[in-house]
Amino acid sequence: MSSTQLTFASRDAHHAWLTSQAALPAGFRVGTARLEFTPREAPKPAQMTLTLLALDAPTPDFAVVFTRNALPGAPVVIGRRRLAEPTLGAILVNNKVSNVCAPDGVAASEQICAATARLLGLEAGQVLPSSTGVIGWGLPVEAMLGALPRAVGSLAGGSILPAAEGIVTTDLYPKIRSAELGGGRLVGIAKGAGMIEPNLATMLVYVLTDLAVPRAALRAMLDRAVDATFNTISVDSDTSTSDTVALVSSGKVPLADLAAFEQALTRVCRDLAEDVVRNGEGVRHVIRVQVQRAATTALARALGKAIVNAPLFKCAVAGNDPNVGRLVQAIGKHVGAHAPATDLSRLRLTLGGSEIFAQGVFQLDPAKEAALVAHLRGAELYASAPPKDGVFTAPVAYPPHERCVEIGVDLDGGAASATVLGGDLTHEYVSENADYRS
Amino acid sequence: MSSTQLTFASRDAHHAWLTSQAALPAGFRVGTARLEFTPREAPKPAQMTLTLLALDAPTPDFAVVFTRNALPGAPVVIGRRRLAEPTLGAILVNNKVSNVCAPDGVAASEQICAATARLLGLEAGQVLPSSTGVIGWGLPVEAMLGALPRAVGSLAGGSILPAAEGIVTTDLYPKIRSAELGGGRLVGIAKGAGMIEPNLATMLVYVLTDLAVPRAALRAMLDRAVDATFNTISVDSDTSTSDTVALVSSGKVPLADLAAFEQALTRVCRDLAEDVVRNGEGVRHVIRVQVQRAATTALARALGKAIVNAPLFKCAVAGNDPNVGRLVQAIGKHVGAHAPATDLSRLRLTLGGSEIFAQGVFQLDPAKEAALVAHLRGAELYASAPPKDGVFTAPVAYPPHERCVEIGVDLDGGAASATVLGGDLTHEYVSENADYRS
Repeated sequence: MSSTQLTFASRDAHHAWLTSQAALPAGFRVGTARLEFTPREAPKPAQMTLTLLALDAPTPDFAVVFTRNALPGAPVVIGRRRLAEPTLGAILVNNKVSNVCAPDGVAASEQICAATARLLGLEAGQVLPSSTGVIGWGLPVEAMLGALPRAVGSLAGGSILPAAEGIVTTDLYPKIRSAELGGGRLVGIAKGAGMIEPNLATMLVYVLTDLAVPRAALRAMLDRAVDATFNTISVDSDTSTSDTVALVSSGKVPLADLAAFEQALTRVCRDLAEDVVRNGEGVRHVIRVQVQRAATTALARALGKAIVNAPLFKCAVAGNDPNVGRLVQAIGKHVGAHAPATDLSRLRLTLGGSEIFAQGVFQLDPAKEAALVAHLRGAELYASAPPKDGVFTAPVAYPPHERCVEIGVDLDGGAASATVLGGDLTHEYVSENADYRS
Repeated sequence: MSSTQLTFASRDAHHAWLTSQAALPAGFRVGTARLEFTPREAPKPAQMTLTLLALDAPTPDFAVVFTRNALPGAPVVIGRRRLAEPTLGAILVNNKVSNVCAPDGVAASEQICAATARLLGLEAGQVLPSSTGVIGWGLPVEAMLGALPRAVGSLAGGSILPAAEGIVTTDLYPKIRSAELGGGRLVGIAKGAGMIEPNLATMLVYVLTDLAVPRAALRAMLDRAVDATFNTISVDSDTSTSDTVALVSSGKVPLADLAAFEQALTRVCRDLAEDVVRNGEGVRHVIRVQVQRAATTALARALGKAIVNAPLFKCAVAGNDPNVGRLVQAIGKHVGAHAPATDLSRLRLTLGGSEIFAQGVFQLDPAKEAALVAHLRGAELYASAPPKDGVFTAPVAYPPHERCVEIGVDLDGGAASATVLGGDLTHEYVSENADYRS
């Protein structure tokens, strides 16, 4: 969905491109600090990075959207309260421990916000906390308090890249997208990889801008942008307990055209959402489903999700196997269970542009099968290599290209449409999530 | 859920137990024939088995429940019509090709029913067809017509084992369960393995009985038994286009106690459902979720399904990793998205009998973690062995035991309960479905 389809020949080339996108908008600084700790729950040493996004002056203009998971993390509980505060001065992110349903998790997170505020000359209520990592572990409060002064001491303007690198967990590479508009800019970073079915999108995203947009407009635009972008992706259908998308304006650059801002915001969100899928845990193919002429947007989106979440189809894609029967199964399953009144008699399906189903029957022959295999191979990010120890790992630390497995679903039953992105189901996903504790 | 928990030390021991369950009720015969053919869609030779279940005399007393997938196979389309026929004389099952949305699929299936009927002295409308296998391929009609006389010629009473062996696809072993009642018996067979989330249960099941039960009672009891058993399991959340559960009575043995029959039928269905999960594609752990004190049965069942279908939790179980955060994530995801009014403040979770979550927080320590790991290891059906070529395969051809990963969910919010069975997500599942066309 990027406006231009990027390709990268090496990690260095990707890093250079990230650097070209990374300029911080006016009014923001970034600092990080690494620390080591021993979790109470699993007594072996672990590493954590603190990432601090600080405003030069507190701003009333911020918007945050959180996970709909009914058992959210302590930072989400606190973050919902922060929405009512008059201003925001900083965001403090830690990886490795998500602080979800841990004993005294809210108190621990508030204690760290208060210490951060003291160091920055703010109130605790002006610091938004975010945590990502293992669910169930508690924050290592003492170790974090000890590292905070280093994070504050490293605060610098210029580039958001240290923050993009600081917030990752199982991500293979940092994710940055930006847009220029009327003398100001937006820059967004994302952390994703697993437990990704946005509802909101299972991940952390921060979009910073120096363009002046009032709080109410900012919040309405973020809601719409998230719904159209992060809420249409799924890596594994799981919904994290910590999803957070924050949008903060320093207000340094006057802005006249709110519609242009929303357009730029939506594009940054869409590109980051696609980045999150492309770097999803174990993802070797990005699958893009474009559903057309559905009765409702909800049906179009649900059908797209049903396809990208069908394990057997995801496995077939992983194997470059155009097993289109599994695609039809996924559509029929969803309609049979959730939309039985839908007329499928004019259903038309394409894969890589080739028609594979029409008028109630498959449209297949060996030549078309060969073309479909070629399409799947062309969209593969890297080939799976069976390792000696049975633990599959991704051999790339950058996205080699932005090609997708392209699926078209035409229902000829209405005017609504949706585009949904997902990934395949691979040995690399199972290794990442079964072969060791992530 | 078996009344007694079975263990088997070898394939021979399992085979001997199957044989002990396999006696055909009076009035039925079984025949099979193997054939080779070359599919139009993928021109390399393939093997198919025809399995014929024939009654000595046509019976009015039969019941069939079909998939709710909205793009069902031709045999399901035909089977729904057969329900209105006065009598049933035979069931013809083929594996390898599911005959779903293939050009002229209904005509092909009817042609084979008609030929079967001629050989048996029946009408085509008295033959119920069933097909399982690759979706999208058409039936090899000529080759099947050529093999039919051999299937009819091999018809014999005595044992249902040849049919249990004939209907399998990726199953590791045949599945037979039986019950004795008042001088008669029920015997059921199942084919399962993949695309298993019953709705009805993605698979083929045939239960034969000589006990005389009128058609209307038979159909009502089968609906209830399927709902309580096959509709509470899931291997991979996919719903096949060919699910069929058939119950046929030859009426040879008079029956007084309908309630006892329904009890026996439900037990046979429950044991077969558990067999299907235990032999699910790549399943190395059966996960049993018992949800208690929910507001409604629908909520209890949906929460159980949300847990056994959560990919990250399934991967953790595969790795004998008690990553209980992923369990909480799955519950929170479902409640947040589908039942937001549910009060989770009194939620209590157990794993292998150990309390892991209560009063809003995890209840974990290193000693408990060790006990949870031991529980997961004890429920493992076989250890995963990384192969040289990267294609993981199950090293057993029998179920070594019937132990499950036992999860308790107590909502303290009502009087409804449900038990849901599922499997883990393993390299063996991915290999089965990505590394070659099944």
